[in-house]
Amino acid sequence: MKQDQEKIVIIASGGMDSTTLLYDTIRTYGSENVVVLSFNYGSKHNAFELPKISLTCKKLQVEQKIIDLVNVFQNFKSHLLLGGESIPEGHYAQENMKQTIVPFRNGILLSIAAGYAETIKAKKIIYGAHLGDFFVYEDCRPEFISAFSSAVSLGTMNKISIEAPYSNINKGGILEKGLKLGVDYSLTHTCYNPNERGEACGRCGACCERLEAFDKNGVEDPLVYQDREFYKTVTS
Amino acid sequence: MKQDQEKIVIIASGGMDSTTLLYDTIRTYGSENVVVLSFNYGSKHNAFELPKISLTCKKLQVEQKIIDLVNVFQNFKSHLLLGGESIPEGHYAQENMKQTIVPFRNGILLSIAAGYAETIKAKKIIYGAHLGDFFVYEDCRPEFISAFSSAVSLGTMNKISIEAPYSNINKGGILEKGLKLGVDYSLTHTCYNPNERGEACGRCGACCERLEAFDKNGVEDPLVYQDREFYKTVTS
Repeated sequence: MKQDQEKIVIIASGGMDSTTLLYDTIRTYGSENVVVLSFNYGSKHNAFELPKISLTCKKLQVEQKIIDLVNVFQNFKSHLLLGGESIPEGHYAQENMKQTIVPFRNGILLSIAAGYAETIKAKKIIYGAHLGDFFVYEDCRPEFISAFSSAVSLGTMNKISIEAPYSNINKGGILEKGLKLGVDYSLTHTCYNPNERGEACGRCGACCERLEAFDKNGVEDPLVYQDREFYKTVTS
Repeated sequence: MKQDQEKIVIIASGGMDSTTLLYDTIRTYGSENVVVLSFNYGSKHNAFELPKISLTCKKLQVEQKIIDLVNVFQNFKSHLLLGGESIPEGHYAQENMKQTIVPFRNGILLSIAAGYAETIKAKKIIYGAHLGDFFVYEDCRPEFISAFSSAVSLGTMNKISIEAPYSNINKGGILEKGLKLGVDYSLTHTCYNPNERGEACGRCGACCERLEAFDKNGVEDPLVYQDREFYKTVTS
């Protein structure tokens, strides 16, 4: 049955959300019908994320394509990018977390995914935007996803659509799904501000949200943290 | 008056349409408020277009940023790209002209322009899609431009909009404007299939449309052509 299906392109960074979504997508469509698209866009944590998602792809025997975008994003300003200022600490809902916005990042990644999907005759692109992203990131919100999907459908021969199946659940909900799917969370990276060994800081918005999600699910996060308690002081 | 205006980002390749639009945009907003964004996406003619638009930018004393996207587009298939099959000859309205589509090219270029505009606090992006593009290119049509502009506005902090002021006129109409604006068309390149000296073939869809536009305006095209008569046999 699955053999005749069209390819599905999934954007996966190596974070918790996209890795869980990858397991979920493979369960639905079969690994032979899924192509993982990963990007190096020059963030401070890309160097630690990308090896993790590549290991997950190998483990799940799914095709992966990595596209380097350092050329592009080096022209943009964000605290999240290499060369940018310090990553802020605390919860995503805080105003200063907007410093981690990379201008129109998801729009750019989705556009490139659309061009790639058109090339391999895929009709659907899936990505892992979720409720917790909405505090800060305009290009993760449902109204953006819907508008962008319409535009991409109009702009492609194959009428490609974009879906963000986790756009109505938070990180705790994603983890709950992932634990049922058997996701190996040791092969994920979330921290925006890791040390040179890739160990999570425990203090950035991404770490706090992740540790909170593990807490809510009553499971210990397999990653190494420099500060595993800080999130309890900032959780919303 | 013009000094207080926000920056305008214009995507300009070095073709007739975007070069005319650049003159037009500078007349409206002032050269000090305009930033030209040019891309090398690995097409067969980029090597001849880009030096031309850079010369025009110098001549008009306008800021230019060039972003290299060969990394990205080398993953896509199109007869227009280096390594792709032969460029078809004839009029744009022909079915085989679809071979020159570069998958979601304009969506990708506009998305990157949106990220760049956000970085430099510009609120408007202008590009040169026009009526003659609609035969072939989905991502040049008014319904795409409108949908994409809405999506970009939703996905950016600055509520960036996209405009294609020439979307209701053809190449003849653009040339008519450009001649009044004093555009130097010797500093443009249009041909999809130039020889190694950059001389236009005269037989591809892009050349035929250009020569037809000059014909209609009763002006001689200053470029060198390998075949300056062929377009008369295919004009719609």
